[in-house]
Formats: sequence, structure tokens, C-alpha cells
Amino acid sequence: MSFSLDPRLAADMIELGDLKLSRLLLMNDARYLWLVLVPRHENLSELIDLDARDRAILMEEIAAVSKALIGLPGIDKINVGAIGNIVRQLHIHIVARASGDAAWPGPVWGRGEPLRYDTQEAREIVRDLKERLIRSSAW
Amino acid sequence: MSFSLDPRLAADMIELGDLKLSRLLLMNDARYLWLVLVPRHENLSELIDLDARDRAILMEEIAAVSKALIGLPGIDKINVGAIGNIVRQLHIHIVARASGDAAWPGPVWGRGEPLRYDTQEAREIVRDLKERLIRSSAW
Repeated sequence: MSFSLDPRLAADMIELGDLKLSRLLLMNDARYLWLVLVPRHENLSELIDLDARDRAILMEEIAAVSKALIGLPGIDKINVGAIGNIVRQLHIHIVARASGDAAWPGPVWGRGEPLRYDTQEAREIVRDLKERLIRSSAW
Repeated sequence: MSFSLDPRLAADMIELGDLKLSRLLLMNDARYLWLVLVPRHENLSELIDLDARDRAILMEEIAAVSKALIGLPGIDKINVGAIGNIVRQLHIHIVARASGDAAWPGPVWGRGEPLRYDTQEAREIVRDLKERLIRSSAW
């Protein structure tokens, strides 16, 4: 299995690590807590490019990430999306939404410019997320 | 199991029928071929409100609907989203996108006003979709 992350995804995100099927990334945008799963196979662009077994694993990875986010203070809704009209490599957005956030109640995609984390902030968020993901059995 | 469709979803959509888990609806918006799955349980708003077994069924229903749409002429990408910031009843959008459509390459949610199908057009689309869904094993 030869996998490489699309450079446009790599440029916008911070890598958290690999789950069973997918690489888990944090969108480098402090306006939202926004995670992305990228199944580590070549040449995927649609969910149906995965076989049924991998689709089931992906759904459980989406669930585990959602569980890690839903308990956070101020979070009212999880938004999940597989869009990929621009970057075709299959990637699934899992976004923790707070009523009153920068795009609320609309979706986050294509709204405004990302606000980058500073280094210390990113380090703390990554550490906290990893602890939450371990507790939600993502790892 | 007592299920009723949120009236805001019912107002915007045309019912196609019930799959194993979900009610399948067509968004009454001729700008896109846009289907919606609504799992028929009460009080769901997140994917993680479904148990793992139902999540796996839902993923296969998303896949079957996606397969029915991806072969259509001019369709370049399937967009899948579970958002629900406004209407909280869990519903999953599956949208057949064509490069150059009204929202391309952005997502369809919250862009412009729906363009309603006329009665004859809706009847033909529903009939064609049902045939395609049977062939893609959604039914």
C-alpha cells in the first residue's frame, strides 16, 4: 500500500497520526475544531471507491472522532462531510460546531480565511485531542 | 418504532420510499440531483446517536445511493454531508455534482434559492431514480 497525502491537504493541516484505516489531521484553522480523516489507500475519491469492509471501518473512525469532540464545552453539533470537489483525494471532514461560531448555522466550507494556530496553541490542542481520542477508542 | 419526518424536511422534499434503515427523499430543487437519507428512529441528531450496527447499515445505504448517482451523465463528484445545524433530525445529504453547476466547486448548502421541479419533471426523475436504485441494490 503506497499512500501519500495530497500536498494541498498537507499544507492546510497538522498530522495527528494514523488510525486503523485513515490518517487523522487537524485543520490548521483556530476558528473551529476541525478534524479530517484520509483513508490511506491510493486513488480514492469517493466513499464507494472503498470496499464495504473499509467503509464500515471508516464509519467507526468517524464515530470515534465524533465522540471525542461532542463532549467538549460549547460544542452543539458535529458536522460531517465528504465533498472533495477541489481536492479529489478522499477526505472526510468532522467539524465541532458551536452555535455562534464564525459560520453558524451555515457549513464551514468555503467561508472566510483560515486563522492559523500559533505553535504553542497547536501543540496543546493536539495533545488534548490525542487524549480524548484514546478515551473514545479511536486509538 | 415511532418515526415522523421533521416537517421542515418534509416541506422541501419528495419522498421516494423506505430503505432498510432510512427514508429516502429527493430534495425538491432542480438545480442539483440531491437525495437525503433519514434514519427512521426517534430522537437522532448525530451519527453517534445510532448504534454501530445501524451506522454500518447507513453507510451501505449511502454507498448504494452514491452508486445510483455516480453513473449519471455529467456527474463528476458525489458530495455527502451530515450537517443539521438548523434541522436537528439526523439526515444525510447525497448530492450529485457536475462541474459548472450552480454552486460548483463550493458545497450546495445555503447557496441561493431552490428551483422547484414541475410535477411532470418530478415524476420522471423519481421513476428514473427508483430504477437506478434498484439496480444499485439500494432496494
